[in-house]
Amino acid sequence: MTRNANDARLLTPGPLTTSQETKEVMLHDWGSRDSDFIEINRRIRMQLLKIASAEASHVCVPLQGSGTFVVEAALGTLIPRDGKALILVNGAYGKRIAKILDYLNREYLVHETAEDTTPVLSRLDSTLAGDSKISHVVVVHCETTSGILNPIGEIADIVARHARSLLIDAMSAFGAIPMEANQIRFDAVMASSNKCLEGIPGMGFALIRKDVLERSQGNAHSLSLDLYEQWKNMEATSQWRFTPPTHVIVAFDKALQQFHEEGGVGGRNERYSENCRILIDGMAKLGFETLLSSDLQAPIIVTFKMPEDPKFDFNEFYDRVKDKGFVLYPGKLTVAPSFRIGCIGHLFPEDMREAVEAVEATMKEIGVESGKPSSS
Amino acid sequence: MTRNANDARLLTPGPLTTSQETKEVMLHDWGSRDSDFIEINRRIRMQLLKIASAEASHVCVPLQGSGTFVVEAALGTLIPRDGKALILVNGAYGKRIAKILDYLNREYLVHETAEDTTPVLSRLDSTLAGDSKISHVVVVHCETTSGILNPIGEIADIVARHARSLLIDAMSAFGAIPMEANQIRFDAVMASSNKCLEGIPGMGFALIRKDVLERSQGNAHSLSLDLYEQWKNMEATSQWRFTPPTHVIVAFDKALQQFHEEGGVGGRNERYSENCRILIDGMAKLGFETLLSSDLQAPIIVTFKMPEDPKFDFNEFYDRVKDKGFVLYPGKLTVAPSFRIGCIGHLFPEDMREAVEAVEATMKEIGVESGKPSSS
Repeated sequence: MTRNANDARLLTPGPLTTSQETKEVMLHDWGSRDSDFIEINRRIRMQLLKIASAEASHVCVPLQGSGTFVVEAALGTLIPRDGKALILVNGAYGKRIAKILDYLNREYLVHETAEDTTPVLSRLDSTLAGDSKISHVVVVHCETTSGILNPIGEIADIVARHARSLLIDAMSAFGAIPMEANQIRFDAVMASSNKCLEGIPGMGFALIRKDVLERSQGNAHSLSLDLYEQWKNMEATSQWRFTPPTHVIVAFDKALQQFHEEGGVGGRNERYSENCRILIDGMAKLGFETLLSSDLQAPIIVTFKMPEDPKFDFNEFYDRVKDKGFVLYPGKLTVAPSFRIGCIGHLFPEDMREAVEAVEATMKEIGVESGKPSSS
Repeated sequence: MTRNANDARLLTPGPLTTSQETKEVMLHDWGSRDSDFIEINRRIRMQLLKIASAEASHVCVPLQGSGTFVVEAALGTLIPRDGKALILVNGAYGKRIAKILDYLNREYLVHETAEDTTPVLSRLDSTLAGDSKISHVVVVHCETTSGILNPIGEIADIVARHARSLLIDAMSAFGAIPMEANQIRFDAVMASSNKCLEGIPGMGFALIRKDVLERSQGNAHSLSLDLYEQWKNMEATSQWRFTPPTHVIVAFDKALQQFHEEGGVGGRNERYSENCRILIDGMAKLGFETLLSSDLQAPIIVTFKMPEDPKFDFNEFYDRVKDKGFVLYPGKLTVAPSFRIGCIGHLFPEDMREAVEAVEATMKEIGVESGKPSSS
């Protein structure tokens, strides 16, 4: 497995670097009714269920578009018009869920914590105990805003104890952080082809508890985003309701094959964790500090505090690091000036070491001696 | 320009055959904030406006997903909640528009004609005269159900005379049938990357009159499908709101380059018309009859009536023609048993001659002497 050596290495939460093998399968055209193509779709859907040990309990419904499309589709399809959601928010993606529910005109409550703080579990527990109208709890597994890993197991236990429905936006975590249906009780998990599974962007998917989806007919606010109809049609015809992104799909199939060859969730978690460790250790030697303590840090994307040195101009830093072949990611935080570096995609420890070297060389060029932030 | 010689030739309305050059640009990964990628997006949007001579009056808003996604997005964004639509229906895609408006809870009327019959213009005229509540008229340019070309110029003139808003689903026509904003007054035209512009599937776009879009804030029923927000964000940041299908986009850019090299709408119309002529003439020699008279037939996809000979089993016919390297398309008609053969995609007169030869050889194999239908 190789990447295209002429391309910049994308240290972002996506679109991210994919393997050359994954891209090369896109050199063909596929008819959407072709039996090989239908078999590819069946295989992808089955593999995604297996990754979450959810074959017996859930079904996989793929959807055209970006990750947000499938998050919105799952919310619209699964939360009935008279439902009420409790959203656990600690970043931009949690806020986006609230924005979607504004569009959908669904009632909701928000429990917000700071971007570097996990949800307050006792408050979740007491709110569910005190408000029987809350039908659904929605949470982001890894909030890409900061890179924080939310305690999904404990959240799921509380939601299950109160017999409510849990919907998880696992966009940037699925495939790299375990999500076992027999250990974490969820009604839906949403993710995309283009994060830890290392496909190209253009489709998402939801793993939905079958009996929950069966009861969801008529909920959806949108024809295109109706996951009940998407599922029913796919079960009946083996085909997508509307033109599928054929090339994205065959690339995803190829990416999943490589995912399994690497050892599935375990293998991918190991590589990303090693990537993350090399990045954080290397940056620490240059004086940079992470926003999050290591117990909160998911091995997906790392937020670094902005250096104190006034000679550090992020845009110049970004451009110079990019000239060395690495694409960083701006910050999205409100709690502190910061920038982000991703650890996911078809990148390996050696890539991360070279990324740190590129940062070090850039600091020399712009005359910044240390990445030490002002707050420390 | 070449196609992948190992792949079946897709005689369908899409996903269709694309050139090898279009697919080869997907062998790279692109960061969505990359300046080259941003320039590609700017170029695509400008070129799409130019194809419709709409640079001065309209803006181009791209959207992730299939063509139906952008049709729904345009309907939801442009028809206000107290608006009323008149839909001209003569096939499955017109009916789909009505279905979308059911989801959106927008009031509408349907003027339906048979699948082989264009809308009744006098009735359109009198209905608009008699119902001032109708704010929008929605029509499909080329109904892929039958391949019929609706008289878009005459429809647009009537709608303009009554000062209503015209929204055109030009999915399978855009790029091959002229759609000049200075001759046909429309507020929105919706199409996709994967039809006559010969990109790969995964995105659509709408050309929307700028002052109409400016007034549409707050209409949309969906965050993902809100074209006002999609446009505003793209204008402000040059980036997509949500993860763009990067590979689909760079392929579309490459496809548009080839479109211009071929002579734009004129060149493409000429090739598809020639493809269509060779197909219809060749099939006629084998006894097959088209559903539509030549004045109604768009050079996009041709509906052939099912042969009378009881030895003609469509599924067997389809499989045998496919074994010879050509993928046909089943019928979707209610007026007559039929099947369809497309003329679009990266296919040339020689391909169509070989397709007819494959049909002829197949008929010999299954012992069908003539494609003559029962009704003639």
